[in-house]
Amino acid sequence: MRKTVTFEISFGDCDPAGIVFYPNIFRWMDASFHSMLRVAGGHSTLCEKFGSVGLGLVDAAAQFKNTMRNDDALTIRVEIAEWSRRTLTLAYTGEVDGTTVFTGQEVRCLFKRTETGIVAGELAPLRDYLESFNV
Amino acid sequence: MRKTVTFEISFGDCDPAGIVFYPNIFRWMDASFHSMLRVAGGHSTLCEKFGSVGLGLVDAAAQFKNTMRNDDALTIRVEIAEWSRRTLTLAYTGEVDGTTVFTGQEVRCLFKRTETGIVAGELAPLRDYLESFNV
Amino acid sequence: MRKTVTFEISFGDCDPAGIVFYPNIFRWMDASFHSMLRVAGGHSTLCEKFGSVGLGLVDAAAQFKNTMRNDDALTIRVEIAEWSRRTLTLAYTGEVDGTTVFTGQEVRCLFKRTETGIVAGELAPLRDYLESFNV
Amino acid sequence: MRKTVTFEISFGDCDPAGIVFYPNIFRWMDASFHSMLRVAGGHSTLCEKFGSVGLGLVDAAAQFKNTMRNDDALTIRVEIAEWSRRTLTLAYTGEVDGTTVFTGQEVRCLFKRTETGIVAGELAPLRDYLESFNV
Repeated sequence: MRKTVTFEISFGDCDPAGIVFYPNIFRWMDASFHSMLRVAGGHSTLCEKFGSVGLGLVDAAAQFKNTMRNDDALTIRVEIAEWSRRTLTLAYTGEVDGTTVFTGQEVRCLFKRTETGIVAGELAPLRDYLESFNV
Repeated sequence: MRKTVTFEISFGDCDPAGIVFYPNIFRWMDASFHSMLRVAGGHSTLCEKFGSVGLGLVDAAAQFKNTMRNDDALTIRVEIAEWSRRTLTLAYTGEVDGTTVFTGQEVRCLFKRTETGIVAGELAPLRDYLESFNV
Repeated sequence: MRKTVTFEISFGDCDPAGIVFYPNIFRWMDASFHSMLRVAGGHSTLCEKFGSVGLGLVDAAAQFKNTMRNDDALTIRVEIAEWSRRTLTLAYTGEVDGTTVFTGQEVRCLFKRTETGIVAGELAPLRDYLESFNV
Repeated sequence: MRKTVTFEISFGDCDPAGIVFYPNIFRWMDASFHSMLRVAGGHSTLCEKFGSVGLGLVDAAAQFKNTMRNDDALTIRVEIAEWSRRTLTLAYTGEVDGTTVFTGQEVRCLFKRTETGIVAGELAPLRDYLESFNV
């Protein structure tokens, strides 16, 4: 499953050095992930369907290759790069004008509420469902 | 009811002009409001107690008097300035080094879920409860 | 001068009540303003042309009419509603699926650095320039 | 060099699952770094002293161990964990009530503007200067 989303970088996304304040890059990565889920009903529909409180994060990382500025059009490509029994790994690439500006990775779990607390649920049913969309 | 809270302005709160990006000021106003509620148990406790989905906004405004920069200590004073039957008005003043940098106002309702949708609930019970804390 | 911009509301823009955290609405208003300026070269080009450190805010306000949630497409229309000698007023309307979700206003100045500090410059030259784009 | 900073988690920092939206954790990491620099004059003073446009990021990562919610007090400890010739590595630990909620790492460079573009400057002078503060 994959998706490409474009964001218009704005003045307020940038810091006193005139370049994007880096936590915004994680914000756009997360937004791209949620955008990718829309073809399958979106995050809240999926959570309801699979008895989850959220497709939450256990790890996030990014490597910044080039700066981004106000008025840049940032194109993010997100894809599910790997499924394990209880984690899925997302791979991100951000480009401006054909140049890679960052790469990123997120590891997420399908968190479920149980009598003994929050646990990471088995992913096989979610994987089958998402792969059925063929995107 | 009132509260004074101090925020350390950081690099990432500022824009390419080197001054605070103004939506952050509303973020700090909202955070000051939630900080004020903590003496009474905090927002989620109050929502549960009064059958509300949230003390949400209907109006927000701010007047910017002076700029703020990285490393400034911003002190916000929030108080409930006015109660009407179904709205409460918050008044905010922000200061850096004794100089007023902004004033702000929020109008909020105690939103409740009903069979016919979300409505603004009567505020008298919440007012009595909050005023019992004498702060 | 006017512009219409669409934003995809995402999970991370929303608060524990599941609705948009309101400071984000001001962030999108500001982003719409900067998007509108792009036809005229964008904010930094205009600042350079008119000897300004920024088209900064003196007042901002919004009236919230309806809630927005993850997966909503928010369309913001911004226009310059009024010019005075040293202030310009922006008017904003936000819609989701044809329903108005908020209205907003910003008052901005063309700030210039002088020997005696930052002052609000005369707007006539900027007005003539922006109106020449006929959008 | 190290610093411990405390942040009051607020309602607006949290997402529809009621837990902190993770890009905010990177925002607080960055704010802790800038807070640490204040004993040495702060980021802009250091940039001026060492001819830099900014102590910018090349890598950022975090491992999320436990959730954080509105009203939690988050204590972040940041320290410079490693110096190489042209990169410095920051190590972060976040705690709520004595429990580790996340760990994080940032790799930063002292970016300088040259005739051929932005380059990562030598760090030895900055290291000597920061270590002279003995904190």
